[in-house]
Parts: sequence; structure tokens; C-alpha cells
Amino acid sequence: MKRFCSFFLMAVAIFSAGPVFAGSRIVTDTISSKVLGADVVCNVYLPDGYDASKHYPVIYLLHGLTDTYSAWVEKGNMYLVADELMETGECVPTVIVMPNAGNPDVHKVWNGYFNMEGWSYEDFFFNEFLPRVEAKYNAGGSKGSRAVMGLSMGGGGSVVYCQRHPDKFSSCYAMSAWLDDGDRDVGDVNEAKKDKLYHTYMAVRNHSALDFVRNADDATLENLRTVKWFIDCGDDDFLFDLSVGLHQLMRDRKVKSELTVRNGVHNWEYWHQALRIALPFASRNFSRE
Amino acid sequence: MKRFCSFFLMAVAIFSAGPVFAGSRIVTDTISSKVLGADVVCNVYLPDGYDASKHYPVIYLLHGLTDTYSAWVEKGNMYLVADELMETGECVPTVIVMPNAGNPDVHKVWNGYFNMEGWSYEDFFFNEFLPRVEAKYNAGGSKGSRAVMGLSMGGGGSVVYCQRHPDKFSSCYAMSAWLDDGDRDVGDVNEAKKDKLYHTYMAVRNHSALDFVRNADDATLENLRTVKWFIDCGDDDFLFDLSVGLHQLMRDRKVKSELTVRNGVHNWEYWHQALRIALPFASRNFSRE
Amino acid sequence: MKRFCSFFLMAVAIFSAGPVFAGSRIVTDTISSKVLGADVVCNVYLPDGYDASKHYPVIYLLHGLTDTYSAWVEKGNMYLVADELMETGECVPTVIVMPNAGNPDVHKVWNGYFNMEGWSYEDFFFNEFLPRVEAKYNAGGSKGSRAVMGLSMGGGGSVVYCQRHPDKFSSCYAMSAWLDDGDRDVGDVNEAKKDKLYHTYMAVRNHSALDFVRNADDATLENLRTVKWFIDCGDDDFLFDLSVGLHQLMRDRKVKSELTVRNGVHNWEYWHQALRIALPFASRNFSRE
Amino acid sequence: MKRFCSFFLMAVAIFSAGPVFAGSRIVTDTISSKVLGADVVCNVYLPDGYDASKHYPVIYLLHGLTDTYSAWVEKGNMYLVADELMETGECVPTVIVMPNAGNPDVHKVWNGYFNMEGWSYEDFFFNEFLPRVEAKYNAGGSKGSRAVMGLSMGGGGSVVYCQRHPDKFSSCYAMSAWLDDGDRDVGDVNEAKKDKLYHTYMAVRNHSALDFVRNADDATLENLRTVKWFIDCGDDDFLFDLSVGLHQLMRDRKVKSELTVRNGVHNWEYWHQALRIALPFASRNFSRE
Repeated sequence: MKRFCSFFLMAVAIFSAGPVFAGSRIVTDTISSKVLGADVVCNVYLPDGYDASKHYPVIYLLHGLTDTYSAWVEKGNMYLVADELMETGECVPTVIVMPNAGNPDVHKVWNGYFNMEGWSYEDFFFNEFLPRVEAKYNAGGSKGSRAVMGLSMGGGGSVVYCQRHPDKFSSCYAMSAWLDDGDRDVGDVNEAKKDKLYHTYMAVRNHSALDFVRNADDATLENLRTVKWFIDCGDDDFLFDLSVGLHQLMRDRKVKSELTVRNGVHNWEYWHQALRIALPFASRNFSRE
Repeated sequence: MKRFCSFFLMAVAIFSAGPVFAGSRIVTDTISSKVLGADVVCNVYLPDGYDASKHYPVIYLLHGLTDTYSAWVEKGNMYLVADELMETGECVPTVIVMPNAGNPDVHKVWNGYFNMEGWSYEDFFFNEFLPRVEAKYNAGGSKGSRAVMGLSMGGGGSVVYCQRHPDKFSSCYAMSAWLDDGDRDVGDVNEAKKDKLYHTYMAVRNHSALDFVRNADDATLENLRTVKWFIDCGDDDFLFDLSVGLHQLMRDRKVKSELTVRNGVHNWEYWHQALRIALPFASRNFSRE
Repeated sequence: MKRFCSFFLMAVAIFSAGPVFAGSRIVTDTISSKVLGADVVCNVYLPDGYDASKHYPVIYLLHGLTDTYSAWVEKGNMYLVADELMETGECVPTVIVMPNAGNPDVHKVWNGYFNMEGWSYEDFFFNEFLPRVEAKYNAGGSKGSRAVMGLSMGGGGSVVYCQRHPDKFSSCYAMSAWLDDGDRDVGDVNEAKKDKLYHTYMAVRNHSALDFVRNADDATLENLRTVKWFIDCGDDDFLFDLSVGLHQLMRDRKVKSELTVRNGVHNWEYWHQALRIALPFASRNFSRE
Repeated sequence: MKRFCSFFLMAVAIFSAGPVFAGSRIVTDTISSKVLGADVVCNVYLPDGYDASKHYPVIYLLHGLTDTYSAWVEKGNMYLVADELMETGECVPTVIVMPNAGNPDVHKVWNGYFNMEGWSYEDFFFNEFLPRVEAKYNAGGSKGSRAVMGLSMGGGGSVVYCQRHPDKFSSCYAMSAWLDDGDRDVGDVNEAKKDKLYHTYMAVRNHSALDFVRNADDATLENLRTVKWFIDCGDDDFLFDLSVGLHQLMRDRKVKSELTVRNGVHNWEYWHQALRIALPFASRNFSRE
């Protein structure tokens, strides 16, 4: 009867367990922000065998417009990818932080990673969120042990954060990034239309990633070269031209970036596959200390 | 203002839309079975542009133990994979049928794809389910336009269905398959333990896939050779030896099968990636008519 | 002693054999051209089990500048890729024809796939080469059973051939394609510099692939849509902008094309990997007859 | 005229250059061995920007039976793979050493990586070759900065070297490995048949990799666990069962190893693709110092 019992126990153990790499955990945490005057929720992935007395590198993994801090876990199954890649060593054990920066109700709720009138998210991110979350989970703490990546609005956020804070991140991985190319004329917008989505949109415009490269002076370019860049966008993505345009601009100004264009559109299939490339990329660009 | 409006419209259109390949649909249907004396639910994936007046090939996509007909949609996001591969032509437009064969409450509810005392699922599948669902959705109808694939218990189901009904399927793709290798001694099992899970387990034993190949006569082997076989199992899967053993047995008896062993365990990350390989495999093995 | 002998025999059989899929063959053939007033050499890949009494689809596989008809065999090991993909069925059994269109001595010898003053290669290709080679090897014969692909100058040749003869090819796969974007001013070139390379370069200009799409009328666009297009170029290729530009132009004019950008440069590592994608692409776009 | 000239110069620069990542070099070197009483040739890959005053990790890349030190360069195009992966950082800059251990004339010339009567290659390798080549190229020097990998006979060599010298290598990548499983009866071999190939074959038997794991005591197993293992073998390789068997044995004895089974046979297509996986694997398992 042993064999049957062992299968029986195995079945109970395995099939009921959910994710099979048992050790990793998702913690939902809240950071109270004075800058924003609000609490900001985040998910934190702690790797298998996480030990608070040891120090870990950190990855900030940013969600897109109409999503929240839970999207990478619930829609992207990021823990399955992270578990697998850390198990093989393709990604070193890393704390992965997924802060909230939005809500599906895009017209009524603040969205995005940039400072806007009345909502200084970037200030919050660098002055409050980053130091506190890194202290709490004993992670990051230096450019060499910190990376940022994200999808769509979060891909744009990753790029702009690394442009404006190149001393903070060792690498940037932009998936299907929502970027501004600086040549669009918004025209007169009716005051009634100036809702939260309008402000999000204008913030992206005002942090034009392509203009930033176009206008960068030598010192700025030199700083950009200290970041490892990876741009990844589907061949049928409606934002395709922005990713390619950024790659071309950076190349022309001697800022090396990897570019990958795979089959796909602006969806979770693309981003799930992207994460399989992004985590090893971030990992191998952490400092070897 | 045009530009802003167009982005605004785009945002509403795209971001609110969920899956971006808009045309495909998941239909939940019910087949009332006399054989089982029960209703059996299934999900049916209808490809982009599905037109009931046209004929389609059909794939049966089987779930595992402790899961239901909805697992491939809800946990496996099968529509994202199918949408993408049909968009590029790597998979031809195909109706994908996901029948129910279980429930997380494995001790109390019937599970599995085989005939057991009191639950003749295989009879139901071939005599009731298959003809009715194919007639209803104008799909399949012949070996050349029909394939079967599945994970774990559903991988075993796929293999055994193709062993016992090689005239029905053009191809079989078994993911992390739960198979029996015929050498296990169950011993005396306490009557009290003979619950539904016990019956499921015994049904797998009684339909030993490895013994089937070992004991096959020449005519049977010749029939097996009319099916295209693909076996896919993670290197750290607790069922690994069964998949490899089946491949070796078939090879030794000149029944060609593909084998892939990728990094991974018995989880949805593995099966999601497997589906990306399985759908084109099934598709290219449909008859070219 | 059996075991040792069997290994001994195996060693002799396997290790001495070169390519292990024994059945395929490379035939070197010559077509005598009246149009060119010259003999043109080609390599022809005949698949495992090739039977002259059966009909096969055909792929024209074009080499690049400074190379010859033997490059895909000798530098690209195309038979290893073709053997493997045909063995699994990812590519159906296909005759693959590699015509000569150049020579490393680019200044003194005719190069390229287009008509030039004194060297009407395109006329030769469609009026002499294609019908004769297809008759001889019982391959192709119709749009639905014919594809073209190539690298660099041969990628450009593939694109332009499909633009000008969309009724002839079911699909086009352009690797690191040398294309013209129509906006370059050559200026006055010293007569002394007008050697064979100059003529090759001018022929590419005069067959500007990007201008062709820009200037296409509705009927032309409709014809382009009957071809399946795939553009594949390395992110660090010096010709990168041309491939992306072509994809963007075609997309804007509603001619669907796949685009893949992988890591890499203008070299055989890239093209070898490209061939692994290209052969299944061509295969699945042959007519199902 | 600028544009034409620039293309002209580009063409000369690029097309004539061979490998486009210009910086790496293959050096052919010779080590004079007292142990063997012979000179042993090797190829050494020096990465782009190699600087003899800096220290590098080292990979030993072993060839198979009937091949020589030049096979990985000439048939495997290993420099294309190494160049690409080092350019992206997937592999850190590494010296790759390819020593000679054979000859196509297998019956008359010494072959293999093990000690045999009259040919103590293993002694040569560890006592003469390894220290001298590492000193000369300022590479390796410790377990943490040294890896070994190879194909067929060289895959078996890699496995056995790491079994017998686990203190020397951080990782082992075995491609299509020729291993011994310890259960074969050679029987009486005619003295006349006892040529060089016989000795090679017997040396593999006498260094049975599977028996080594079967018979390992706890201390030996603990040492094996200090090496990262990766086994990679084609599903249609005639040596398939040996690779799978080794993985299963190691797993059962709690020595973790990765296993990959991809489509393929015992040929250069398989090994070329394997190298794309092997170099990053070795690289990420070098010590981070």
C-alpha cells in the first residue's frame, strides 16, 4: 500500500500547493506618503529562502495604465517566472517591488510615475518609497544593486526614471513602453476634459523620453551610458514606433541599448514572455561585489 | 486637439479591451450525458472570425487533477497563446474544446478521462461528447482534423486516448503527463480509503500507457505510428521518469515521438510555454485537404 | 563481444558520416543563360527521400554581396537546418535552390539580382532560371508552392522580386536586407569609379524597395497583400533602419508583415538562426493543396 | 558623392571583414608535454579587448571523437556565438581553450581525455596543460573561475573531469555526452582489434560516469554538489539514454543538475545551439569576486 499512499500524499502535497517552488512569497505592504498625502500600496516578491539578515538586490517592476500594483502578480504571474529563473540561477535571488501607480478608473484617479500638479509621484518614489522599502526588506541601496523595468506606462516610467536618475539604476528594461516623441501638438483642450487621464497624458508629454535623448549634452549622455538599456516591443504594438525611435536615437548618440522586437501586441502574453528575458538581464547587470 | 483625442480614444479602445486580438471568443457550453447521468460543462475557444458555416479542425485540450474545464482559460490564459499563434498562421484557425473531467474536491467528485465503475467517462467522451460538440461547432469530424493535448492527468488522458483510438486523432501532445508504468504494487487498500481519488488512481493504473506500448503487437504498433506524438516534461517534474520512459519505449518499438525536456516543474509556467509549442505542432499535423 | 562491435560499427557509421540525417543531398548544377551570355551555377538542396516523380514546393535562398551560390551551404550550413526542420515536419519536404549572383571580387564581377546595363539578371531569373530549374527538379510551378528568402543583398532581392512579381511567390523572408530608402543623393561619381560594385549599388537604388511601397497605388498594394512578408534584422545591424522602415511603411499602407529584431549584427550567426525561423514560415504559407 | 563613398567604404570595411565583432581572436598554440612525450596543439579564444594584464575566467571546450582542437572553430563557429554573447553580457569576457585530444584517424592515433596505457592524457591535462595555459593567458587559476564543457567524447570528458576533480571546476556542461553506464559486457576482444579506438572505448568504460554516481559515498556526493551540472542531449541522439540516465541518477542522489532535451541528433546543429546555452550557464556560475 506504500505506493498508493505515497502517491496520495504526493497528490495532496503537490496538487493542492499552488506554485510548486514553495519558498517564495508575495507580501502586500503599504507606504504612507507625506508627499502625496496618501497611502501607497505595493506588492513585494521575496525570493525562496529570503532571510532578512542578508542583503538582496532589488528590481522595481512597474505596471501600466488602467492597472494597479497587483497586475504583475495576478495577470502577469510574475512569481512563476521569478521562481523558475531564480531556481536555475539565471536570476540571482532578488527582491522585486511592485508599487501602485494607478487605477482602472483613469479619469478620476491619479495615474503615472511622474510629478504632476497636485501629485508628485516621482518625488514620492525617490524620496519616500525607495529608501523605505529598501531599508525594510534589506535590498538595493546602490545603483549596482538596483534595476527598474515595466510595461507600457511603466515601461515609459522606467526609461524616464533612468534618464533623470542614472545614478540610481544599473539597468532599465522597457516593455511596450509608452513614451513621448516630442512632436505632437495637443492643441487646445477643453477645460472640462482636463481630468486625471489628461494630466497623466500631459505628464508623459512633459517628460518626453525621445526629446531627452535628442537634447542631451555630452555629460548627460555620459551618464546615460552608465545604465544598461533594453527595449522590447511587439511588432504589432500600437506603440511600436516609439520603442524603435528611442533605440535609434540612443544608438546615434552612442548610448548602447539592446532592442528586441518579437511577434505580438500590447498584452500580457507579450509582457509575460518579456519578463523571462528581463529578469536575467537585470540580474547580470547587477554589480559583482 | 486631434492628437490628444486620438490618444484618448485609443486609450479607451485599447486599454479597456482586455485581450487585444479582439475576435476570438470563449463559449461555455453544457453537454447532457446519458452515459454519465450528468451534465458536463466545457469551454470552447472559437477563433477570430469564426463562421459557423465553415468547417474547422478541432483540438481537445485537457486539464489536470484538481482542476476543471475552466483551468486552461483562467490559469493557462490559453486564449492569449491561441490568438497570437493563429494571428501569425503558426496555428491555423481551430476550435479548441476544453471539457470538464474533475474538480478540486478530488476525494468526493469523479475525476479523470477513463471508464471507472460507475463513471464511464471515456464512453461519454467518444460516444456523446465528441460527436455532439463537433456537430454543434462544425469542427473536426475526422482523424485528420482532430488533435488532443493536455497536462498531467490530461496529458495521460491524451496519450491513452490516442493509444486506444488511434483512428480518431492526428496528433497527441502530452505535457507533464501522469502515466502508469505498470510495475507498481498498490497492495491492499483499506475499503474506507476507496474514495473518488482512489478510483481515479486505479483507472490510471488500469490504463497503463507504458504497458500498452510494451505489450503492443505489430498491428497495434502500426496504428500507433499513424499518430504524431509529442512528449514534453520539465526536468524537475516529479513525473519526469514516466515521460522519458514512454519516449524510450516508443522509440525502441519504432513509434516515432518528439520529446522535449525544458527547465521546469509541474506548474502553469511550464504548461503555458508548452501550449506555445503544442498548438503549432497540432496544426501542422492536421491533414492538408 | 557484441556490445563492443556494435559500438565500433556505430562509431564508424555515425562519426564518419558527416551530417547525420543521411537522406538529403546538395546538387551543384549549371544553367546556361542566353540572356546573360553566361553559365550560372546553383546549389540545389534535395530533401531526404527526394523522388523525382513527385512534386515539391520550392524555396529560392539568395546569398549576399561578396558571396556566391555556395555560401548558404558552406558558411550557413543550411542543410543542417533544413534536415532538422523537415525531419520534425516544421518544414514540409521542399527543394531549396541557391543560385549564383555574385563573387567576392565585387569590383570586377557582376553582382546582384536586378537588371543592369549589360547584365539582366532579373530577366534571366524569371525567364530562364526559374522555369528550367523547377522543371528539372519537379518543384514549384505556382505562386502557392514557391517562396523566396535571402540575406543582405539577397534579402533585398527577395523583397524586390516579391514587389515586382507578387504573382510568383507565396512568401518573402528578408534577412538583414540591403534595401534602398530613396532619399539618398549619390552625387557625381567619377567615371573611373563606375565599376561593377557601382552598378550593383545603383541597381539597388533604382529598385528602391521603400519607394516602391510609398508610391504603390491601390491595385499594387492589393497585390502586395497576396504575399506573406517577414522581415528579420539584428538590433546592431548597420542596415537596421531599412528593415524597420520597410515594416513601418507596409504597416501604414495595410500590407501585413511580420518583423523580428533579435540581438545581432550582419553575420552568419544571425542568418543561421534566421533560417530556423524562415523555413517553417515559408512552409506554412505554401498552399494546402 | 558622399553617400556613395560612405557605402563604398562601409562595404569594404564590413563585407571584407569576416566576423563583424572585430575584437576577438583565435590563437593556435602548442604545449609540449613530458607526460605524453608529444606536443599538444590547442586553439585559444581571446575575447574582444583582451588585455594580458587583466585576469579572465577560463572555459575548456572539448571536442569529440574523430575531431581535433580545430573543430569548435571550424565546424562549430564558436567565435560567432562567443562574440555575440560577450557583446550583450550574457557571457562575461572569458578565455576559451580548446585542446587537442584526437584525430579522425581513430584507429591509429590516440583519442580521448582519460589516462590509458601509454597515453596519460588526464595527467597531462591537469598537471601540464591547465597550469601552463592559464598562466600564459592570465586566466582561470581557481575553481570559481574555471568551467569545462564539450560534445560527445568531450561531453563525457567534461563529466568525468568534474567527477574526479570537483575542486577544479565551477560548472560542467555536457552536450550529447558519450558516457558509460557500467553494465556492458565487452567480452573477449581479438588482440588484433585492440587498436587506438579500442583503448579509447575501454578508457570510457573504465571511467564509467554512471557507475561513479551509483557508487559515490556521502563525501563524494557532497563534492559533486559543489559543481553546477548541465546535461543537454537531442531527443533522437543515439546516446540519449546515457544523458537521461545520468540526470536521473544524480537527481536520486540529490546532486542537482539541469537537463535539456531539444529536438535533434548527434550533429553540429545541436552543438552550435547548445553552445548558446552553455556559455551563459558557465558565466553565471563563475564566482562573483
